[in-house]
Amino acid sequence: MIDTQSSADTFQGINPATGEALSGIFTEATADEVARACEQAENAFAEYRRKSGADKAQFLEAIVTEIEALGDELLTRAQAESGLPLARLTGERGRTTGQLRLFADYLREGSWVNARIDTALPERQPLPRPDLRQMLRPLGPVGVFGASNFPLAFSVAGGDTASALAAGCPVVVKAHPAHPGTSQLVGEAIQRAVAACGMPAGTFALVHGRTTAVGMAIVEHPAIKAIGFTGSLRGGKALFDAAARRPEPIPVYAEMGSTNPVFFLPEILKEKGAALAQNYVGSVTLGVGQFCTNPGLSVVQTSDEADTFIQEAGKAIGQAAPAAMLTQGIQQAFTKGIDKLRQVNGVDVLGQATAADGFANGTPTLLTTTAEALLAQAGIAEEVFGPSSVIVQANGREQLLAVAKGLEGHLTATVYGTDEELLDFADLLEILEQKVGRLLINGFPTGVEVSHAMQHGGPYPATTDSRSTSVGTNAIIRFARPVCYQNFPDALLPDELKADNPLHIWRLVDGKMTN
Amino acid sequence: MIDTQSSADTFQGINPATGEALSGIFTEATADEVARACEQAENAFAEYRRKSGADKAQFLEAIVTEIEALGDELLTRAQAESGLPLARLTGERGRTTGQLRLFADYLREGSWVNARIDTALPERQPLPRPDLRQMLRPLGPVGVFGASNFPLAFSVAGGDTASALAAGCPVVVKAHPAHPGTSQLVGEAIQRAVAACGMPAGTFALVHGRTTAVGMAIVEHPAIKAIGFTGSLRGGKALFDAAARRPEPIPVYAEMGSTNPVFFLPEILKEKGAALAQNYVGSVTLGVGQFCTNPGLSVVQTSDEADTFIQEAGKAIGQAAPAAMLTQGIQQAFTKGIDKLRQVNGVDVLGQATAADGFANGTPTLLTTTAEALLAQAGIAEEVFGPSSVIVQANGREQLLAVAKGLEGHLTATVYGTDEELLDFADLLEILEQKVGRLLINGFPTGVEVSHAMQHGGPYPATTDSRSTSVGTNAIIRFARPVCYQNFPDALLPDELKADNPLHIWRLVDGKMTN
Repeated sequence: MIDTQSSADTFQGINPATGEALSGIFTEATADEVARACEQAENAFAEYRRKSGADKAQFLEAIVTEIEALGDELLTRAQAESGLPLARLTGERGRTTGQLRLFADYLREGSWVNARIDTALPERQPLPRPDLRQMLRPLGPVGVFGASNFPLAFSVAGGDTASALAAGCPVVVKAHPAHPGTSQLVGEAIQRAVAACGMPAGTFALVHGRTTAVGMAIVEHPAIKAIGFTGSLRGGKALFDAAARRPEPIPVYAEMGSTNPVFFLPEILKEKGAALAQNYVGSVTLGVGQFCTNPGLSVVQTSDEADTFIQEAGKAIGQAAPAAMLTQGIQQAFTKGIDKLRQVNGVDVLGQATAADGFANGTPTLLTTTAEALLAQAGIAEEVFGPSSVIVQANGREQLLAVAKGLEGHLTATVYGTDEELLDFADLLEILEQKVGRLLINGFPTGVEVSHAMQHGGPYPATTDSRSTSVGTNAIIRFARPVCYQNFPDALLPDELKADNPLHIWRLVDGKMTN
Repeated sequence: MIDTQSSADTFQGINPATGEALSGIFTEATADEVARACEQAENAFAEYRRKSGADKAQFLEAIVTEIEALGDELLTRAQAESGLPLARLTGERGRTTGQLRLFADYLREGSWVNARIDTALPERQPLPRPDLRQMLRPLGPVGVFGASNFPLAFSVAGGDTASALAAGCPVVVKAHPAHPGTSQLVGEAIQRAVAACGMPAGTFALVHGRTTAVGMAIVEHPAIKAIGFTGSLRGGKALFDAAARRPEPIPVYAEMGSTNPVFFLPEILKEKGAALAQNYVGSVTLGVGQFCTNPGLSVVQTSDEADTFIQEAGKAIGQAAPAAMLTQGIQQAFTKGIDKLRQVNGVDVLGQATAADGFANGTPTLLTTTAEALLAQAGIAEEVFGPSSVIVQANGREQLLAVAKGLEGHLTATVYGTDEELLDFADLLEILEQKVGRLLINGFPTGVEVSHAMQHGGPYPATTDSRSTSVGTNAIIRFARPVCYQNFPDALLPDELKADNPLHIWRLVDGKMTN
């Protein structure tokens, strides 16, 4: 942990349910402190990059051990700082340690390096072919920006940190100022794991800050070779722009959320529209609507069944309970976003939960609009982060397809339909596939599995790099690049590329997969 | 081919060996014409993206057939426009058709889509796992900028076009103005293949232009989703900046060349310094030094053997033959670059070929300098495109390592050493590995194999995306992004992800590789 005592600018965590300031004083990192953390990461990289998959796996598991050893203290602090229920945070801790373990397993298996070998053809005419061996190698120190909405799983020891450390990259984390105490506890746990495993000291650093200066200092430091970020479009785009302006531009993996449209087709609304309305509102209000995959937009074709669905959804939202949002700032932005939406011509409030007292309470809200209004005013489709959603009524199939065609990039899109009508709406699926990273049939997008096949990303503005995922094992390749070794003696090759494949990983040898 | 007759601004190809204007009038594309090509590519994408691997393979092979059918006309025109010898161009045509065939095979094999399947776990507690299936899907229309130095293999039907078409992306090529006639012939060949295979009309378009306006219009068009470029740092960086400034930023794969340092260790110079000096000069002057992988920098430790090596290299360059460079502009930039270098304090001309008459002749030149001078003046290490190289003399091992540490990103680095001293210089290899995309032992970098394990890329400023290669089968993934299908009925899944694996591709199913 770098010493952040030299700056006079301090702050405390705030309980969003009560507004009270929590114990612990956190200090805005100075430019010098950020520079020191980045330089130490650069120094550590020389050694850490050479660690074997087995060594890195052990390190990730040591982080799990240290996080678990924090026990209830971590959960209590996270609850106080985020307003999230203890059960959710317990689950989120499991997700955090689970993904560290998943990456540990993935490293032990080892094939992620995408080893490719073209053996020498010394007799080939007109020219011999040299021996060529390629694998992924780590990029260098990575800057990670913790998210507000997952104080554990997308924060200090979250997916970005886990995948960067797994790739062989030291990490400098900027803690999200909404949960500095939680961040500090986890950061210290990681530091203990660094020491316990004999990893170089600069392998991990945590800095605090409420201003953009701290984040910019990380992005602009020449030692930093990539950025992982989860947060707002404005924040992610600012980091992307700063990274592109550097003397040496670097990749920015910013996951900036989206409205995750859900299309409810006519036949399935006939079959079970009322139940879907309940489930839809459940997904909209889950975690006070503070998921990147929250369904902020739904689309139906005007019909009697659609009217019933809308009516039921309106009733359900009326019965939802307001709850504390992550910070007062987020709650204010949510309220402002709803106010702005309801003033748009052609947008109406369908239903709203009964407001209740509370420091940073968000009030679940559903709105309705028409496809015409949406197509004329793109702002309606913009994300309002929180427990709200806009139901769009399309006048027939063509208008529904037009809404799909008009969509920007999103993390997910969903189609609810009967088996038969899904086949009939293949063109809708085809359009949506070009807009998103994950396409769902008959399920809500708010669950994001941590696995091999998950894609949590999508075309801009959902992310700044549609080729990447921030969830699942594929996240590791964001922090690596291929290096080709030509005519290397076996003794000088990494184990992954040695002739006898001592790690028994899958490799593409002369065009054939083999282990 | 789009109709480019509406602009009044025309130009002709120029023979760089003689200065004569060649037949054929080419017209600068207008903004409207570029927009039309991009829109047609977007329209074509809706259909072309759904073509099977087998269909795309057939299409790539049809392009081969059409290029081969051009016969000597193509080679003669390319020779007239580039000044390159017929034998070299014959080889380059083979490289061009060879890589189209390689991608066709790669598509038929089909595993490039990196299919990943996590099957449903409906009974899992506390929550069931949905069925998740992921594969790579094409990004959308791609803009390709042909290179000056490979009028066939890195041009209209070169690696960027081949890999983008293979990925399922329509292509809009901006022909390099140094070889408009060659480009036109190949562009028309591709159009014939489009028609012969029944591909949608906008799958391929070629535009001409000498100004930056045409290129910028391609990069800035909203239908374009990625850029492939081979050329100068200035040109590539301008495209990168323009792409980052777009309302929707897009990836730019710009391969901008480098000086490809070669380190000659002491023992191997003792063993065969004179022969290495000959080979080094051979690599420096190959193709009039106009390769991205031309060794523009070499490093030796001061010693008697190094002196002999330097002396021999100086003699060899004196015997090299001047030859026409690709364009008069390139020749002028080369001459200016040499003039600038020789005026730098601490840089001396070691040897130079005898100048000879010729319109755009480049005169092979070797220079020497010291490690001190290089470390103090980074400009010495900058690429001078053409048949020249700078020999850097390091005063001992530490200074040699300091030179390595001070390097920017390069496409390649090479170490020449005996088996024994290579082990002793593992730290040098470790440093160089962090600077380049390809690291060679005892071989010159000018040959770039088109294969599975080739990595033709490297950290900035060698390229704008060190995670990518522009040569070899891995080039295809530049133009694709993962899409995850959740809970899809088998009938709606792409063949690559169907339950019974009808294409028999390699897939990661529940964490296990299987076909």
